[in-house]
Amino acid sequence: MHDCPYCKKLEAYNFGDYLDKTQHWIIFLAPNQSNLGTCVVALNRHHPTLTGLNTSEWEEFTELVERMESAVKNAFQATLFNWGCLMNSFYLENNLEPHLHWHFIPRYRDPVEFAGHIFEDPHFGYMRPRPPKNISPDVREKIISKIKEYM
Amino acid sequence: MHDCPYCKKLEAYNFGDYLDKTQHWIIFLAPNQSNLGTCVVALNRHHPTLTGLNTSEWEEFTELVERMESAVKNAFQATLFNWGCLMNSFYLENNLEPHLHWHFIPRYRDPVEFAGHIFEDPHFGYMRPRPPKNISPDVREKIISKIKEYM
Repeated sequence: MHDCPYCKKLEAYNFGDYLDKTQHWIIFLAPNQSNLGTCVVALNRHHPTLTGLNTSEWEEFTELVERMESAVKNAFQATLFNWGCLMNSFYLENNLEPHLHWHFIPRYRDPVEFAGHIFEDPHFGYMRPRPPKNISPDVREKIISKIKEYM
Repeated sequence: MHDCPYCKKLEAYNFGDYLDKTQHWIIFLAPNQSNLGTCVVALNRHHPTLTGLNTSEWEEFTELVERMESAVKNAFQATLFNWGCLMNSFYLENNLEPHLHWHFIPRYRDPVEFAGHIFEDPHFGYMRPRPPKNISPDVREKIISKIKEYM
């Protein structure tokens, strides 16, 4: 992975594979790539809610929104993007402290062929969870590289 | 409703009942109150994506996040809040121009009694759509007043 002690600590959260970081946010390629390029954008300090983010954290988040939307549009021709800050599961079965993060879910009108797989979005136009797509760590690495190439 | 020509134009979008507005955003009480206090926060100009929001629009949005979370926590003792910018349906059946908006969905560990109704959140901890709760326009007005009282 990489050698940031804080990111190490976040491993328990299963946000995915490290992709990039900025001063205030860490980007992970999400475990579930049923929608190609799905990421988690986690705050680079422990804090539970959007309330209480400081100006510089928000500013950097808004820059990331533009960079990530542009990168995934150029890399994979995504049609649009869903952003969500939910935090539901922390209040349920697990006993991890709530850690603020965003879900970034690219949506595709048309299937995309990448690294030997066809990525489809059969629920395009709707928000319906899908099980993870079965892809190898090598393919995950290729997705990360492709996104970084355009960021 | 009220006499803003722009809000009139937004009526076709069925975002809900007017609650409040700021320079850059209009808050509606969402049609679906299965989760008490659910709102739509729509941009006060026609624009389709988070990419392209200007600094002053983002700044005002982040202030609204704090104000709305605080208001609904104090009004109804919400446990946490889901925020989502999805935009899915515009790419589907309807032919309205995509109009940027956020979904604000309060989540409740415990049922809330308000205006003669019990509002429950049976999927607390999960994101699962529910059909609208059957409440009268009068009850909707009471919800709006209560939120505004705390904003």
